[in-house]
Parts: sequence; C-alpha cells; structure tokens
Amino acid sequence: MTLKTLVFSVATAAATVLALPANAQFAKAEDAIKYRQSSLFVIGEHFGRIGAMVNGKLPFDAKAAQENADIVAAMAALPWAGFGPGTDKGAKHKAKPSVWTEQAKFKEHAQTFQTEAAKLAAATKSGDLAQIKTAFGPAAQSCKTCHDAFRNR
Amino acid sequence: MTLKTLVFSVATAAATVLALPANAQFAKAEDAIKYRQSSLFVIGEHFGRIGAMVNGKLPFDAKAAQENADIVAAMAALPWAGFGPGTDKGAKHKAKPSVWTEQAKFKEHAQTFQTEAAKLAAATKSGDLAQIKTAFGPAAQSCKTCHDAFRNR
Repeated sequence: MTLKTLVFSVATAAATVLALPANAQFAKAEDAIKYRQSSLFVIGEHFGRIGAMVNGKLPFDAKAAQENADIVAAMAALPWAGFGPGTDKGAKHKAKPSVWTEQAKFKEHAQTFQTEAAKLAAATKSGDLAQIKTAFGPAAQSCKTCHDAFRNR
Repeated sequence: MTLKTLVFSVATAAATVLALPANAQFAKAEDAIKYRQSSLFVIGEHFGRIGAMVNGKLPFDAKAAQENADIVAAMAALPWAGFGPGTDKGAKHKAKPSVWTEQAKFKEHAQTFQTEAAKLAAATKSGDLAQIKTAFGPAAQSCKTCHDAFRNR
C-alpha cells in the first residue's frame, strides 16, 4: 500500500465521517482506551511533522508534507470509536468525564477535526507551503479546542 | 476522509513500500518506541476484526471487512520507522535485539506484511468471504513469522 495513492475527497469525507465507529468492537475498555491513545499518538506524530514545516523548524518537503497529511486524514476517523460507553475507566487516561456527558459537543469536535484533516491533505497536494499553512491553522486549532475542552493536562 | 474512498494498488504498493520511513523523525527513542507500538496496536485491532469474521467468531460483514482491511493496508508501512538505530532502548518494549542485528531479514518481513495487507484489502473489495479467507491466511502468517523471530513473548 502506498499512501501516495490514497484518493481523498473532502466532499465525501464530510458526508461519511464517523461512519467507522459503528463497526468498532473492543474486547474490553482497556483495549478501547489503548486504541484511542494509540491512534491519537500516531496522528499527533504525523501532524507534528507538518507543523514543524509550517513553523519553519523543518525545511519544507512537499512530498513528506503530503505523505504525513495523508496518514493524518486516513486515520482521523479512528480514535473516536475508542471513547464508547464504559470507556471512562479501565486504564489510565486523560479524557475528562465531559467526553461522555457532552457527547454531542465531543462528536462535533471529532467531526471538525476530520473535515480539517481532509482539507489539509487536499492542501498538501498543491505542493504550496502557503496553502498548507492556511489549512494547517484550523486543523491545529481543532486539536487544541477539543483538548482544552475534553482532555485533562 | 472516508476510508471507503481509499484506492489501493497492489502493484504500486510493492514498488513503494518502505518509502515512508525515510521521512520519519522522532524527537527521542521513547517516541519511536511508542510510535511503533501504537501503530502496531491499531493495526492489530483492525486486523483482528477481520480475523474474527474469517474464523466465524463474528458474522461476516463485507463492508466492515473492507473498512478494516483498508485501515490495515493504509497503516502497514508505518510501524517500521519506529525501529530505527538507537531505538532498542528508551522505553519498555518487546523487540528482540535481532531487529537491529538482522536488519535485512526484519525489513523483508515488514515488506511481506505490507504486500499481504495490500492483497487482503484488495480481496475484501470482492465482498466474497472465501477470497478474504484466502488472503487473510498469508497476512496473518506474516505477522506470526515476524513476531516469532523478532518479538519477545
């Protein structure tokens, strides 16, 4: 599988995000917690590499930006399945109780991130750093907004 | 991003696998270890869901099989970047020293898994459980062979 061959569609992404969690199954809460932490960590690593280019900490590499953004976009739908009912305990984690008491708001944040991640992946296909910067801002903000509201420090 | 829109190509996959690690950067060994463990865990969860269908522990759901296989194939290239030089220590892990002393063999296993994961994803597009079973076997075997050789219990 080459990530360069992934075909992204912002339009269809908006229509079908959050479709995967319905198929998700975890043997136990501990697995769900590990799953969401793992997928978010991998996303964070790849997102951070784009951020380093956007912030000038790494030289801009259009191909690497695209590959990293493709991974982020392909995985953006995954973590949310790990926040199902009963997964507020079972292992050490930083999620606030509000994840489960304010589900609608949490899902809205998850949805926003997926939309922004798809836009960022689309922007990296231009090979133009300015366009990538424009798309990176709202994507990064969607992480921060959700973390501030739903994650303990 | 919808995983249903991912386009896979076994042919190009074979040519471009292991391309991503060249772009990978980790701040410290601990991050690389966490990254490979995280990506392998997410892959394992999704691969396991296909296995449950193949083994009759879960009812066959063609759409879910395809979604899970797409995730596995999209992520199959990722973990290996986390096994770079110097990442034999830095955090608790199960990788054997042979990962770093038998790099060629390890890379060959990583490559085999990516090829088999792409074939499995292609097979799920048929919607035919028999074809999925045929592709699942070698993919599962590629996990086991590598774990037996390179992972402590």
